[in-house]
Amino acid sequence: MPCHVALIGVGLVGKQVVHQLSSPALSPLFRIVSLSNSKHTVSIEPSSSTLPAEDLLALLPASSAALPSSSSHPGASYSSANPEQVVKDLAHASKQSKTSTILIDCTSDLSVTQLYPLAISSGLSVVTPNKKGFSSSNELWQQILEAQNAPGAGLVYLEATVGAGLPIISTLRDLLKTGDEITKIEGVLSGTFSYIFNEFSKPGVKGGPKFSEVVKIAKANGYTEPHPADDLSGSDVARKLTILSRLISANPSSLPALPSFAEGYVSLPTQSLIPKALEGLASGTEFVEKLPEHDEEFDTLRAEAEKEGKVLRYVGVIDRMAGIAKCGLEKYPAAHPFASSLSGADNILALHSHRYSNSPLIVQGAGAGAEVTAMGVVADAIKVAERTGVRVHL
Amino acid sequence: MPCHVALIGVGLVGKQVVHQLSSPALSPLFRIVSLSNSKHTVSIEPSSSTLPAEDLLALLPASSAALPSSSSHPGASYSSANPEQVVKDLAHASKQSKTSTILIDCTSDLSVTQLYPLAISSGLSVVTPNKKGFSSSNELWQQILEAQNAPGAGLVYLEATVGAGLPIISTLRDLLKTGDEITKIEGVLSGTFSYIFNEFSKPGVKGGPKFSEVVKIAKANGYTEPHPADDLSGSDVARKLTILSRLISANPSSLPALPSFAEGYVSLPTQSLIPKALEGLASGTEFVEKLPEHDEEFDTLRAEAEKEGKVLRYVGVIDRMAGIAKCGLEKYPAAHPFASSLSGADNILALHSHRYSNSPLIVQGAGAGAEVTAMGVVADAIKVAERTGVRVHL
Repeated sequence: MPCHVALIGVGLVGKQVVHQLSSPALSPLFRIVSLSNSKHTVSIEPSSSTLPAEDLLALLPASSAALPSSSSHPGASYSSANPEQVVKDLAHASKQSKTSTILIDCTSDLSVTQLYPLAISSGLSVVTPNKKGFSSSNELWQQILEAQNAPGAGLVYLEATVGAGLPIISTLRDLLKTGDEITKIEGVLSGTFSYIFNEFSKPGVKGGPKFSEVVKIAKANGYTEPHPADDLSGSDVARKLTILSRLISANPSSLPALPSFAEGYVSLPTQSLIPKALEGLASGTEFVEKLPEHDEEFDTLRAEAEKEGKVLRYVGVIDRMAGIAKCGLEKYPAAHPFASSLSGADNILALHSHRYSNSPLIVQGAGAGAEVTAMGVVADAIKVAERTGVRVHL
Repeated sequence: MPCHVALIGVGLVGKQVVHQLSSPALSPLFRIVSLSNSKHTVSIEPSSSTLPAEDLLALLPASSAALPSSSSHPGASYSSANPEQVVKDLAHASKQSKTSTILIDCTSDLSVTQLYPLAISSGLSVVTPNKKGFSSSNELWQQILEAQNAPGAGLVYLEATVGAGLPIISTLRDLLKTGDEITKIEGVLSGTFSYIFNEFSKPGVKGGPKFSEVVKIAKANGYTEPHPADDLSGSDVARKLTILSRLISANPSSLPALPSFAEGYVSLPTQSLIPKALEGLASGTEFVEKLPEHDEEFDTLRAEAEKEGKVLRYVGVIDRMAGIAKCGLEKYPAAHPFASSLSGADNILALHSHRYSNSPLIVQGAGAGAEVTAMGVVADAIKVAERTGVRVHL
């Protein structure tokens, strides 16, 4: 019996998820029963015939459009978007039909993640690339963990929250569940920072372009958020590191405890690369215009690294032995994989553990983008389906 | 209800598997019901109390010892090793008790892998680091694939056959199952070759040690098989590449077909680094003694690579666009991750796909060793257990 899927958030990633789930290989395994954007929800009768991805997506009116009074498709019905109601209706339908149901959250809304405890404890499985539920308050995180203990609780898969489709969360989980002890995690976890520092600070190169120049090009090429300060604050990296840190802490260990990050990622020491004078500037364009006034600070940092034969990288570090997690600029020698092997906007993560002690386990590759993020989500959905009896062969 | 586990092959890896399965976190999920070495099998009543790993392992007499007439443990009984009988008995017991049962094959015997089709089709799940079943004749491989179609068939997990605990098979599977197209796979898949060429051919270094000298040191440090020719033949790499290639071919694709490797890894074009004159030499010690006579050939290869600013690496390559798979020496520029990022005896694999097209998805780390191999096996066993209803939380 196919798994039912309700998708909340139908942006670039959500659309890709629908496309991948509708492939000839996967469409027999999944039935998309609801699509929601910020304004509307379309519910689709699971018994109605399966539609191609484009037709399915066309059933949902744009959030800017009005709610249609009647449906163009006999199996589709409309309502105003209300994620809590979606969760309750799905849980009810799932219990009635005894069908495994997956809530895929492709929004970046905290409010949707606050529904995870309810969803999980009422038997829905949650699959998401949305970092907010796992990197905000410890209270919400604990509620999510506890929801797993409810009778008939759903599953939680979050591979795509860190590194998109890269096998980071699953690998960490395999190490932890088989009893390995993680001693250190270190990674370039932001595609934006990866691009910026791969350009700004190259191994074996004296000097280089101005920091403001690199940020300007990154923005022009779409490697940054519309307001580059949203990247330079480091909070995206801090969120990812909070997730990795909490997953480690959720497992028994004889090593020093990591902080619980009561307020989530904001409790994690994070170096902001936003110059003090530009903090709070509302316009991204103005920010980029004024950034050259601060190039000297970055030139100095680069020169200091060069003197040691090193390059600058913005990394997240969990040092288990010291019991700390932090984000910021670090210096790496030219032969280090973060210096030599990294290119473009790739992410890289090095896992050091008792078993991987001589040299770390390294995962590297594109860590952002709709297709690879959707892949992380859909691979997780397949795992949920497999755990509820669906067979996918070698 | 815990999964039952029957382990065949209790060498270094098998022992580690028992230790990891017996951890406080996992022992509630698994019950080891049988242990076999090449001579004996001990069957353990699942209802008898769970034993610590060391006590459990002590129940199995050494293969050099005689079969004990009676057991020191009330729940244990002995028989002469007969893997086919073990499979039949397990299948029977599993059906009777409706208990999910995993056959873990930690041997390197072809004969055990020939039992996989029977095991799988009679409902046992197979988890193994043994490459032979998946890299020998295409006939056996097809039988394994077909066994998955039997009603109530067991599952097959083989992460540890390539790169030990590194997330290679699972990542490849996630890409394939979500509809990505693999265009190229390239990797240093042998710890022995990795060590040898990381020492023999370093980026930015003129010349270097003699090939025979590096092999001698590798042998002394236990990085090679007792007879180094077993590594230098390339057949271990060819087996791994056969497995990756077959997993790709088992999925629908619009790209050129890869060969089916009718005879398995021997059908895969593989460059042997055994000098012609030393082929068939029975003694590993004599082989190492005579290897210096052939250093010039390797010096020449290294000098040629140096002239192009490159290093030598022994790699496996699947080039999907050209429809070929092959193993042998290739040259890589100094800035390539295979040259710059690789160290020690690490494995590295680069997956190029439609989604990972600008830069590949890279996995790197220790690709051999009892602990990390056992980790790959046990992580797979957890996945099988989860797919049969066992709950393991975040």
